[in-house]
Formats: sequence, C-alpha cells, structure tokens
Amino acid sequence: MSNQLYVLAEQLEQAIRTSSDFQQLKQAYEAVRRDETAYRLFTNFRNLQMRLHEKQMTGAEILPEEIEQAQKAMALTQQNEKLAQLMTLEQRMSMVLSDIQQITMKPLEELYRSFAE
Amino acid sequence: MSNQLYVLAEQLEQAIRTSSDFQQLKQAYEAVRRDETAYRLFTNFRNLQMRLHEKQMTGAEILPEEIEQAQKAMALTQQNEKLAQLMTLEQRMSMVLSDIQQITMKPLEELYRSFAE
Ligand SMILES: [Ca+2]
Ligand SMILES: [Ca+2]
Repeated sequence: MSNQLYVLAEQLEQAIRTSSDFQQLKQAYEAVRRDETAYRLFTNFRNLQMRLHEKQMTGAEILPEEIEQAQKAMALTQQNEKLAQLMTLEQRMSMVLSDIQQITMKPLEELYRSFAE
Repeated sequence: MSNQLYVLAEQLEQAIRTSSDFQQLKQAYEAVRRDETAYRLFTNFRNLQMRLHEKQMTGAEILPEEIEQAQKAMALTQQNEKLAQLMTLEQRMSMVLSDIQQITMKPLEELYRSFAE
C-alpha cells in the first residue's frame, strides 16, 4: 500500500476513534460493564448468538429449544435500558462504517460496472 | 456520519482511484476488453463462478460436471497472459482494500476486545 493511502487510512481511523458516535458507543459499553445485570444479560445473549452462528457455519443441527432460548435472551436484552441504548449506538456505528466502506469501494465498483456493460 | 469523516473517506476514495495499483488494474481490464479471446474466457469463467456461488447460497446441488467445468475455465484463464496479469493485479488491489478496512475497523475491534477481557 502506498504511503499516501496509509496516511489517509490512519487519519480516518483517528477521526472514527474521536467521533461522537464512537465515543458514545464506548461510554455505553462502559455503562454495561459497570452494571452486573446488564453485563450478565449481554454476555449470555452474545454467547448464545455465537453458539448458534457456529452451528450454522458447521451445518450442525439447531434445536428448537436453542432458538427459543436465543429469542428469550434477545427480549430480555431489549428490555434492559442500558443494553437497548448499546444496541442503538451499535447500529449507528455500523452504519457509519458501512458508509465509509461503500465510499472506499466506489472506484472498484465503477470499474467492474463499466467492464460488465 | 459527521462531515469530517465524510471528507476523509472521500479523500481516501480519490487516493485509491489515483493510486498506481488501481490505475494498473484499470489498464489490465481495458487490455482484456480489447482482446476477444481473453474477454470471452474471462466472462465465461465469471459466469460459471457466479452460477456456482448462487447454487451454494441457495443450497442447490452442485453437479460434478459443473465443478469440472469451472476448473477447466480456471485453468484456461490462468494460461492467458492478459488474464493472469489481471488476476495478479486484482489480488494486489484487494489486499490494499483489505488493509484499509483493517485500519478503519481498529477502534471497534479494540473496544470489543477490551470489553471481552
Ligand atoms: Ca449492579
Ligand atoms: Ca482479438
């Protein structure tokens, strides 16, 4: 990668890190970490998600109880104020990163489109 | 997305577009487009790939003939000088974009890591 691209990518990384979206998300994570109940609900939900994801990837059978368990954990998570806030900020951050990704992919996409025409 | 992030992402996009890696890739695509044989081999290979990918995504059965066909198309593609060059440049460009992606994902990754600790 050229030095200019590297410098610009690093500037963008710093700007993401200091952005209000990222700082708010960081604070939301810290709030969850300080709250035993929220932390327990969150890690439980995340572990269930990861186990289901792993099963999907390896083609292992997902039991109806596991889906039910994940749905219950999701509902509990959404009812918790700190976690609901965390998930809202997660979504916002992931939209920002996806916008950035789309912008940086434009040259290649245009090239492919013009080739396919 | 904040204006600063947008401006930096656009600067990065311009830098990608004018980078020598991207310009060389663009020229390689133009060379393939001007060469009937290379163009035909390439579109044939790409169509086969897309059909197999679609089948994978929908869980449809992939026939042994189809795998064989794709392998033959791949071999023919690699034997063509212009296409071999195109694929080398494709790989280089995709490494650059993946490096950029990794750099911009660092803040979020660090946040997740510190939360999981
Ligand atoms: Ca507590
Ligand atoms: Ca020709």
